[in-house]
Amino acid sequence: MIFEADTSTGKTFDVLLVAVILLSIVVVLLDSVPSMVGRFGRPLNVMEWTFTLLFTVEYVARLCCVRHPWRYATSFFGVIDLISVLPTYFALLVPEVSAFLDIRILRLLRIFRIFKLTLYITEYIRLGRALRASGRKILIFLSVVMMAVLILGTVMYVVEGPENGFTSIPMAMYWATVTMTTVGYGDLTPQTTLGRFIASFMMLLGWGVLAVPTGIVTAEMTSQRMNWKPTTRTCPSCLSEGHEPEAKFCKDCGEPLPAYEYDTS
Amino acid sequence: MIFEADTSTGKTFDVLLVAVILLSIVVVLLDSVPSMVGRFGRPLNVMEWTFTLLFTVEYVARLCCVRHPWRYATSFFGVIDLISVLPTYFALLVPEVSAFLDIRILRLLRIFRIFKLTLYITEYIRLGRALRASGRKILIFLSVVMMAVLILGTVMYVVEGPENGFTSIPMAMYWATVTMTTVGYGDLTPQTTLGRFIASFMMLLGWGVLAVPTGIVTAEMTSQRMNWKPTTRTCPSCLSEGHEPEAKFCKDCGEPLPAYEYDTS
Amino acid sequence: MIFEADTSTGKTFDVLLVAVILLSIVVVLLDSVPSMVGRFGRPLNVMEWTFTLLFTVEYVARLCCVRHPWRYATSFFGVIDLISVLPTYFALLVPEVSAFLDIRILRLLRIFRIFKLTLYITEYIRLGRALRASGRKILIFLSVVMMAVLILGTVMYVVEGPENGFTSIPMAMYWATVTMTTVGYGDLTPQTTLGRFIASFMMLLGWGVLAVPTGIVTAEMTSQRMNWKPTTRTCPSCLSEGHEPEAKFCKDCGEPLPAYEYDTS
Amino acid sequence: MIFEADTSTGKTFDVLLVAVILLSIVVVLLDSVPSMVGRFGRPLNVMEWTFTLLFTVEYVARLCCVRHPWRYATSFFGVIDLISVLPTYFALLVPEVSAFLDIRILRLLRIFRIFKLTLYITEYIRLGRALRASGRKILIFLSVVMMAVLILGTVMYVVEGPENGFTSIPMAMYWATVTMTTVGYGDLTPQTTLGRFIASFMMLLGWGVLAVPTGIVTAEMTSQRMNWKPTTRTCPSCLSEGHEPEAKFCKDCGEPLPAYEYDTS
Repeated sequence: MIFEADTSTGKTFDVLLVAVILLSIVVVLLDSVPSMVGRFGRPLNVMEWTFTLLFTVEYVARLCCVRHPWRYATSFFGVIDLISVLPTYFALLVPEVSAFLDIRILRLLRIFRIFKLTLYITEYIRLGRALRASGRKILIFLSVVMMAVLILGTVMYVVEGPENGFTSIPMAMYWATVTMTTVGYGDLTPQTTLGRFIASFMMLLGWGVLAVPTGIVTAEMTSQRMNWKPTTRTCPSCLSEGHEPEAKFCKDCGEPLPAYEYDTS
Repeated sequence: MIFEADTSTGKTFDVLLVAVILLSIVVVLLDSVPSMVGRFGRPLNVMEWTFTLLFTVEYVARLCCVRHPWRYATSFFGVIDLISVLPTYFALLVPEVSAFLDIRILRLLRIFRIFKLTLYITEYIRLGRALRASGRKILIFLSVVMMAVLILGTVMYVVEGPENGFTSIPMAMYWATVTMTTVGYGDLTPQTTLGRFIASFMMLLGWGVLAVPTGIVTAEMTSQRMNWKPTTRTCPSCLSEGHEPEAKFCKDCGEPLPAYEYDTS
Repeated sequence: MIFEADTSTGKTFDVLLVAVILLSIVVVLLDSVPSMVGRFGRPLNVMEWTFTLLFTVEYVARLCCVRHPWRYATSFFGVIDLISVLPTYFALLVPEVSAFLDIRILRLLRIFRIFKLTLYITEYIRLGRALRASGRKILIFLSVVMMAVLILGTVMYVVEGPENGFTSIPMAMYWATVTMTTVGYGDLTPQTTLGRFIASFMMLLGWGVLAVPTGIVTAEMTSQRMNWKPTTRTCPSCLSEGHEPEAKFCKDCGEPLPAYEYDTS
Repeated sequence: MIFEADTSTGKTFDVLLVAVILLSIVVVLLDSVPSMVGRFGRPLNVMEWTFTLLFTVEYVARLCCVRHPWRYATSFFGVIDLISVLPTYFALLVPEVSAFLDIRILRLLRIFRIFKLTLYITEYIRLGRALRASGRKILIFLSVVMMAVLILGTVMYVVEGPENGFTSIPMAMYWATVTMTTVGYGDLTPQTTLGRFIASFMMLLGWGVLAVPTGIVTAEMTSQRMNWKPTTRTCPSCLSEGHEPEAKFCKDCGEPLPAYEYDTS
C-alpha cells in the first residue's frame, strides 16, 4: 500500500502522509520558539514522539517490504527517512546537543517522494533542462559576479579601512555581495565620500550584471511559451542544424529538406 | 439612476461617487495621524459623519431599489457597502475599540463597482487569465521559495543562534524571506563568518529564484504583445498551420476555418 | 551662431556649452558641501558669478536674436534659461534664502537643448511611444500597487500599532512602499510575529506585482528588437487590423490582402 | 611549454596554474583577517613568498622566452604579471605601506590568460557584442538615471536638509542612488512627511527606470535564443525575405544567396 499511489487508497494515504509531514514540520518550528516551549512544552513533546514513532514504523515497514533493503537504506529517500527519525532518539541519549535536533527539518524533503508521481515534476524537469541549456551562460555570470565582488570588495577594504567596519577583505566581499544583489542590509555602509561614490557605481553595475539571470530565465521561458524549437531540424545532406520549421531548402547547402514534423508532446 | 451608468447623468454620478470615496479615504488616513486629529479633529469628525450618512443613504436606497434585497446584502459589494458605514456607528456605541474603525479603509473597494463597467476590467481579466495559465509554474515557484526559506532559515538558526538575534526558526525564516526577496531591512543580520557566507549564497540564489516570476510575467506579456498563439490550428483546405484563435479565414488560401475550441485545461 | 548647430563652429560651441553647463552643475554641488565652502569658498563664488554672467549674456543674446522674444521667454527652454541665472542674483538681494539657490540645478536641463538635435532623441521618442502604447497596463499596475499599499499598510498599522513605529496609516503606507519595492531601509520594521508574517507575504507579493513593469518594458523591447509590427496592416474590405506581414488573405473576412510593404525606417 | 596550451602537458600546466592563482588569492584574503594573521601569520607568510617566487620565476621565464620582451612587459598580461609579484617585494623594503599590498588581488586577472583559449570566451564576446549593439540604449538609460538622481537628490536635500542627515547635494545623490536601485541601506532615511512621499515616488520610479537594463539584456537574449535576425535580407531569385545572416541558400527556392554584409554601424 505504501508503494502504490495510483489506487484511491494509495492517494488517501498520500494526502494523509503530506498532512503528517507538514504537521511534524510545524512541531519542529514551534519547538524552536522559547515562549511556545514554555507554554506548550508537554503536548509538543508528545506530538514529536508520536510522529517519530510513526515515521519509524514507516521506515521499518519500507525496509521490510522492499526487495533490496540495503539499496533503499542508502538511497536519497532512505537517508532522508532515517534523518527524520534519528535526531529525536539521539536527543534522548545525549540531551545536550539540542541544535542537532533541527536536522529534523529535512523531513520536509519526504514530501518530494509523494510529489514524485505527480504532474508537478514535469515542470521541475522542464525548468531544470532549460537551466542546464543555459549552463555556460550561468557559469560565466557567476564568475563575473565573483570577480566583481572580489576586486570591488578589495577596493572598498582599501578605501574604507577597518575603522569604518570593513575589517577584512572577506568582510568587504560580504558587503559587496549585499550591495550588488541590492539586498542592502545597512549593517555595513560606506562612510567616506570616495567609498560612497564607488558604492553608487557598484549598485548600478549590480543591476546591470544581475539583469543577466533574469534575462536567461526569461529568454528560456519566452521561447518555451512560444513553442520555439530551432535546433531540432537537421539537413540530411550537410547535417547542419537550426533550420526553421517553415524552411523548404537547407540554408547551408541548398538541398531540399524533408517535411518538418511538429512536436506533438 | 444609481444603477445605470451609461447615461450622462449616470456618468456624472459615477465621477462624483469616485471623488466622494477617495475623499472619505483621505479622511480615514488623516484620522490616524495624531497631529492632524489634534488640529483638525472637529472638521474631520464632521466630514466622516457626512460621508457615513451619505453612504448609509446610498446603501438603504440600493437595498430598496433592487429586486432581491437579500441577494444584494450578501453579495461582495453589499458587504463592502455595509462595512463602509458600520464601523462609524459602532465606534459611537463602543468608543474604546478605535482600531476596529480602520476597517473603513475597505471603502476603497467600492471604486471597483464603478470601474466594473469600464474598459480597464478587460486588462485585468487578460492579466488574470495569463497568470492562471502559468498557475502551475507559479505554484512550483512558491513551493521552491518556501522550501529554500524553511531549510536555509533552519541552517541559519543553527549557525547564528539566539545570541545573534535568530531567536527561533520562524524568526530565521522571516530573515530568510527578507534576504531572498532582496528587501534587506537589516534588523537581523548574520554576525558570524559562516553565517555571512551562507547569507551571500542565499542572496545570489534569491536572485536566481526570483527571476522566475519576472520570467513568467514577461514571457506571457511578450507572447501577448506579439499576438503569438500556439501553432496547433490547421486550415482544412491548404493544411497551413499557425492560425490565430480569432481568425475566421485561412490567411494563406482564404478558405473559412472551423470555429476554434479554446483549451479549457 | 547660437542657433545653427550643423556647422563645425556650431558643433564646437555645443561641446563647449555642455562643458560649461556640467562645470556649473559641479559648482552648485560643491557649493552645498560645508567643508568645500570653508576651504574653496572664494574661487567657487568667483566661478558661480562667471557662469551666471555667461548664462545671462547668452540669455540676453538669445532674447535679442529670436524673432518672437516673448514666445522664447515663455517657452520651456526660455524658462529654464531664466531659472539658471535668476537665483544667483536673487541670493545677492535676499541672502537669507540660500535653499532657493539650489533651483540652479535645473541648469542641467539646458543640456537637452543641445541634445535636441542629435540622434539620441530618436531613442527617447521610441521608448516614450512604447510606454505610451502600454499606458493602460501601467495605469492598472499603479492602481493595483496603490491599493495593495493602502490596504496592507492599514492592516500593518492595526497589527503593529504606534508602539512599534507605525504611528499612522500614511506612515504604514510609506513602510508598505519601502517593503513592496524591495528597498527595505529598515528604519521601520515589523516587531510582532503576525506583522512579520504579513511582511513576508508582502515581499513575495511585491516581487510578483513589480515583475509587471519589467514585463511591460521587456515585452515592448523584445518586439522592437525583433522588428515585430503586428498592428499596422489593415484589411481594405472589413477594416480589421493586426494582420501578419506574411498573410495573403484577411483572416476575418477571407478577402485577399494587398502586398505588405515593409517599414524601411 | 608555458605558451602551448593545446598539448596535454600544457593543459595540466594550465589547471595547476589556475589552482596556484586561486590559492594565492586565498592567501591574500586571509592575510587581511587580523585573527588569521595572529594565528597563522607564519605559514601565510611562507606561502605568500612561495607564490611570489613562483610567479617571479614564471615572469622572468616568459620575459626570456618571448621574441619581443618589451612588448610583453607593456602588454595587459605583462603588467598584471608584474603587479602580481611587485607588492610583496615592495612591502619588504617599505613595510609601513601595507594597504598597497592588496593590489596583489589583481593576480586574479591572470586567470583570464588561461581562459583566453577556452570556449568560454565565445560567450563573453557574444554578450559583449550584444551589449555594444544596445550601447545607445544603455547610454540613454544611464543619462536618465543620472538626471533623476541629480534632480531628485537636490529636491530631497532642500526638503530634508542637513538636520536629517542630508548634509550636502552629493550626499543626497548617494541616498537617491541607494533608493532608486532598491538597495536601501537605511543609513540615511527621510524623516519628514514630504520627504517620505517623494521617497515613495522615487522607489516606484526607480523600479520603472531600472526595468530598462533588464529589458535590454532580456530582449537581446531572447532574440539570440530564438536565432532571430533582422528581416532585411532578400533572395534575388524568389524575393522571399527573412533569411538569416549565416544562410548561404534561399530556404524557399534553394537558390544561392549573395554574401551577407554585416551592419557595421
